[in-house]
Amino acid sequence: MSPYTAVELIRAKRDGHRLTDAAIGWLIAAYTDGQIADEQMAAMAMAIYFRGMDDRELATWTRAMIATGSRMDFATLNRPTVDKHSTGGVGDKITLPLVPLVAACGAAVPQLSGRGLGHTGGTLDKLESIPGWRAHLSNAEMLAQLSDLGAVICAAGSGLAPADQKLYALRDVTATVESIPLIASSIMSKKIAEGAASLVLDVKAGSGAFMKEVDAARELAGRMVELGKAAGVQTVAVLTDMSTPLGRTVGNALEVREAVEVLAGGGPDDVVQLTLALATEMVSLAGLDTDPAQILSSGKAMDVWRRMIRAQGGDCDAALPTARFTDDVRASTAGVVTAMDAMAIGVASWRLGAGRARQGDSVQATAGIELLVRPGDRVDAGTPLLRLHTDTPGTFAAAREALTDAIVIGSDPPATRPLIIDRIR
Amino acid sequence: MSPYTAVELIRAKRDGHRLTDAAIGWLIAAYTDGQIADEQMAAMAMAIYFRGMDDRELATWTRAMIATGSRMDFATLNRPTVDKHSTGGVGDKITLPLVPLVAACGAAVPQLSGRGLGHTGGTLDKLESIPGWRAHLSNAEMLAQLSDLGAVICAAGSGLAPADQKLYALRDVTATVESIPLIASSIMSKKIAEGAASLVLDVKAGSGAFMKEVDAARELAGRMVELGKAAGVQTVAVLTDMSTPLGRTVGNALEVREAVEVLAGGGPDDVVQLTLALATEMVSLAGLDTDPAQILSSGKAMDVWRRMIRAQGGDCDAALPTARFTDDVRASTAGVVTAMDAMAIGVASWRLGAGRARQGDSVQATAGIELLVRPGDRVDAGTPLLRLHTDTPGTFAAAREALTDAIVIGSDPPATRPLIIDRIR
Repeated sequence: MSPYTAVELIRAKRDGHRLTDAAIGWLIAAYTDGQIADEQMAAMAMAIYFRGMDDRELATWTRAMIATGSRMDFATLNRPTVDKHSTGGVGDKITLPLVPLVAACGAAVPQLSGRGLGHTGGTLDKLESIPGWRAHLSNAEMLAQLSDLGAVICAAGSGLAPADQKLYALRDVTATVESIPLIASSIMSKKIAEGAASLVLDVKAGSGAFMKEVDAARELAGRMVELGKAAGVQTVAVLTDMSTPLGRTVGNALEVREAVEVLAGGGPDDVVQLTLALATEMVSLAGLDTDPAQILSSGKAMDVWRRMIRAQGGDCDAALPTARFTDDVRASTAGVVTAMDAMAIGVASWRLGAGRARQGDSVQATAGIELLVRPGDRVDAGTPLLRLHTDTPGTFAAAREALTDAIVIGSDPPATRPLIIDRIR
Repeated sequence: MSPYTAVELIRAKRDGHRLTDAAIGWLIAAYTDGQIADEQMAAMAMAIYFRGMDDRELATWTRAMIATGSRMDFATLNRPTVDKHSTGGVGDKITLPLVPLVAACGAAVPQLSGRGLGHTGGTLDKLESIPGWRAHLSNAEMLAQLSDLGAVICAAGSGLAPADQKLYALRDVTATVESIPLIASSIMSKKIAEGAASLVLDVKAGSGAFMKEVDAARELAGRMVELGKAAGVQTVAVLTDMSTPLGRTVGNALEVREAVEVLAGGGPDDVVQLTLALATEMVSLAGLDTDPAQILSSGKAMDVWRRMIRAQGGDCDAALPTARFTDDVRASTAGVVTAMDAMAIGVASWRLGAGRARQGDSVQATAGIELLVRPGDRVDAGTPLLRLHTDTPGTFAAAREALTDAIVIGSDPPATRPLIIDRIR
């Protein structure tokens, strides 16, 4: 017999009391094995939405979710392990150049990724636009590749924090996703279970991010850093702007192309800047004395990229697929581009076929949006602003509808917005 | 295709927006027929717990619950219909003398009742201690009895507000019972569906009531009165004290005996006072010019009681069952009784066998508690205070445990507490 009942714990949280370690341990374990009904956990999640969790409750909750599954162990590797997580943004392809770059600096980066849902793309979806590349590796394959190259980007197994998988699916249908402690524990339970010794978080704020406000993003970052430390993982968070898409492309193959440009020493300034900033944090946490900028320009990161892609069956020399149809969105008036709304562009790209509406849907490798201008650029009436790409031209109208008001043209240049807002550790 | 999704409506309520009439109508209908999952309604109920509902939302919500079932129609009766509802208290047997009394005054009282759960007893459980009495009547039987006698107390059919039945069961396991708008709509959807033209509510406040605080009870009363008016039912609420049990008995057969004493012209003062106060409100709403006190002392209410019990198979002349075991709780010190805690006495009676822990459990007709003293009485050390009744003497210890600190003996008489606190219409 359990000393608890779900209804008494829901009531305690609802009334603003803290839950004990033992109560949280029981709750998470009993929910995962089906003793607590979905409707009870939904009510608990909504009570947490309103009442929050203190640091101790949150650390216990996260530890309990990790304990429902297995935890990876990289102690036998001959390199320091360091991982990265982004809370997700439009055009955020940073993982693609970052993982081989940090590996080339001497660390091992076990990047277990997911697929996209909604307006932000998933790293696996992007890489799957490379002919032949496969996301699923066995644990033995992953460890061998990590030992050999220091770089793996692959699908996370279902054995990591199964409580979180079940709870996330529930939160998604009960409007309880947007709770900072629940977001923090969801991300950190998986990242801690993934077993890297240190972790850099890219927490985004702005229209295209999950957190629209900098204050909320800062709070989320702080709570995740605390959780990492409590679990013995060295953790740093970087707070970055997501009001405008990152780089010049949004979509799957389009973003891979841009990532390869960065590895080749080119690419848009903002993508290069953020890649190097995150790499510097990761290399520092790994205790390595290497300069990522130098490694990037040496071509060693590109070498690791090519070997990493090939190790997972990808053909680096094959052409990336391109869309059968394109359509340009043009300026209706002359002036200076003052804003390019990340959320609207993310939604338009999703409507063109780059993203999925529900789990299990397929995505188009080729669909997406090229940004032909950036905030601060001067345009004339008729200047192309965005190029829409798709294999399904019937989606152009819906994409254009999402883009109404997405690009603002004014008379004065916009204030410059720093890409990196803060650093939290 | 519905224009709504459950998750968007939960989010709207969570964020403090009001739900439109159409959205509420869809939500309740879709939940009742299974299109909306229990976990979604649980999250909605918890969001309502925190955000509340305004008057219009609440009226729409209640109307939508009524619309999921049938509504009784007493338009063909030759008497004005008036109903009564109590939010539940310990020793609250008022319905038993009240229904025949108001019927004897000339109204028709269709009292559709439930069974008890937890520390307060149910009216049907009490009446079932009368040998032969049956709670279930067909609609035709109920109408005939109402036309003939003006008095029916029977089980509510499952066709009234089925949405509420489903929602109440969900709230019970998700710690979302204690929400004033959800309580108000649950009670009023059933009462309005029962079809009486007018309604008197006895809303209790104090330790033995659902609402411990007078302010919360007053708010509940106000919202229920508004709901009644919005549905075209004349509604008055009486706010009454439930810090001490009503009358001298708690239990099933014990309370029937006390109710019959009242009908015979005797009985405890507080039970008589509240019966007459509620009867006066009901007779007035029914537009009748009759004095309930005069009718009670004339014996006409007792006549209706006997005919009503007999009409449902009960034997009014058979002895009521008595418990096989009794045990007295005695004063440990001399002084004045300053408090007799209704909740503790209710729980003790429940543990003796008078109530059920879950739906479908059976109850003992004979179990319960006699109050041998009342607040204000002087006692000596060793004076019997309570007499515990049960057929299962193994329950005495648990009942006594619930009664620790239930009866306070001091040096000064307690301040007198008015039984009727306020009247809201």
